[in-house]
Amino acid sequence: MKTIDVCLTPELLHLYNLPHSTVVVVDIFRATTCMVTALAHGAEGLMALSDVDACLKMKSQDWIIAGERDGKKIQGFDKGNSPYEYMGDDIRGRKIAFTTTNGTQAIEKSKEASEIIIGSFLNFNRIAKHLLFNDRHTVIVCAGWKGRVNMEDTLFAGALIERLKQYLGSDCDAPLLSQYLYNQAKGNMSDFLKDASHVQRLRNLGVDKDIEFCLQFDLYDVLPVMKNGIFKA
Amino acid sequence: MKTIDVCLTPELLHLYNLPHSTVVVVDIFRATTCMVTALAHGAEGLMALSDVDACLKMKSQDWIIAGERDGKKIQGFDKGNSPYEYMGDDIRGRKIAFTTTNGTQAIEKSKEASEIIIGSFLNFNRIAKHLLFNDRHTVIVCAGWKGRVNMEDTLFAGALIERLKQYLGSDCDAPLLSQYLYNQAKGNMSDFLKDASHVQRLRNLGVDKDIEFCLQFDLYDVLPVMKNGIFKA
Repeated sequence: MKTIDVCLTPELLHLYNLPHSTVVVVDIFRATTCMVTALAHGAEGLMALSDVDACLKMKSQDWIIAGERDGKKIQGFDKGNSPYEYMGDDIRGRKIAFTTTNGTQAIEKSKEASEIIIGSFLNFNRIAKHLLFNDRHTVIVCAGWKGRVNMEDTLFAGALIERLKQYLGSDCDAPLLSQYLYNQAKGNMSDFLKDASHVQRLRNLGVDKDIEFCLQFDLYDVLPVMKNGIFKA
Repeated sequence: MKTIDVCLTPELLHLYNLPHSTVVVVDIFRATTCMVTALAHGAEGLMALSDVDACLKMKSQDWIIAGERDGKKIQGFDKGNSPYEYMGDDIRGRKIAFTTTNGTQAIEKSKEASEIIIGSFLNFNRIAKHLLFNDRHTVIVCAGWKGRVNMEDTLFAGALIERLKQYLGSDCDAPLLSQYLYNQAKGNMSDFLKDASHVQRLRNLGVDKDIEFCLQFDLYDVLPVMKNGIFKA
């Protein structure tokens, strides 16, 4: 029987069997939320790159280059890491190369998976339906923060576990822990997250409205799947 | 200011600054609970060894050799991994060499810490008071299960965080996550843990009474601190 598992940080990926799994990579604040938003607004394709130089090289091939380090837009880049930057007409039909502190590293480290998809609350239902109907095992990979766990990605994992709990078959308590936290948080996720480290970091950067945006369920019906290194809707 | 942090599995230890910290190693089911019980019943000293052969060699030096693999007593060993084995007169004044699936590996991996102490619910208050009055940073190291996280060690971490929350200064949500789970569980930890993977493993081994024993707060007033490789009360 297929199972669903949760990897709380990319530093633990070596403990999971990726080649037979669908991996859902999640970085709620804000990389995967931006990616889903961009595809929902007509971006043709996305590439996740772990370093800044590799991203800069894509600029000459007419890609939009986008991303952050420590939450701030990278010098010389077209776009930063706010989902509000990925809703305009300048996105439609374009390819975007992303590099971020945690999200794109998590995607890079997941590359041996049978299938990689991008998750966020914005496309939650579409992800859940896809996992329900495919035959592979699932590993939800939380991007975390510099190798450590974070609350918002764990809550996303918990929301998926809550929806797909009939497939829980883990030798590990990460799914259960995520599910319990999500059920505690679901009445008011924004309030639940008020002491979370990354929420405090984002508030210091003055991007409070991004936080609320990233926590919305089912705004978009897109399923970003990687094919030949590029995510398309 | 000193801080308190939580390392959810020994696989994440490289992310923490151990040389300036007190590490509290915890493996609630059942290694550290056994160790605390043995010291409370007069054992002279304990050694944690990561492999079976190293443990067997201590037998000829008149040490009691003790431990488990996958929850079961190791062939040729004097004692297994039930705390009830560490309450008798045969323990008093003796030295015990332990090797277990997760707990002793977590101690081994923490060796560069400034101070290592052994935690369990049984000596919770003594641990909390020690941390309150020492000047070092604290890292609570959850032994987990074969590199993955488990619920019971996370709850112990959460209980310590709840007690010492004025020292939370983390760039990571593991302390918060542990604290929220503990506050959800504290009314009835045994019930909260009923679906936890290791509780199910122990029930399959028929050691239900060990589970209840391991979840008792403040049964003993011992502080096991490592000196020259040996834990003494």
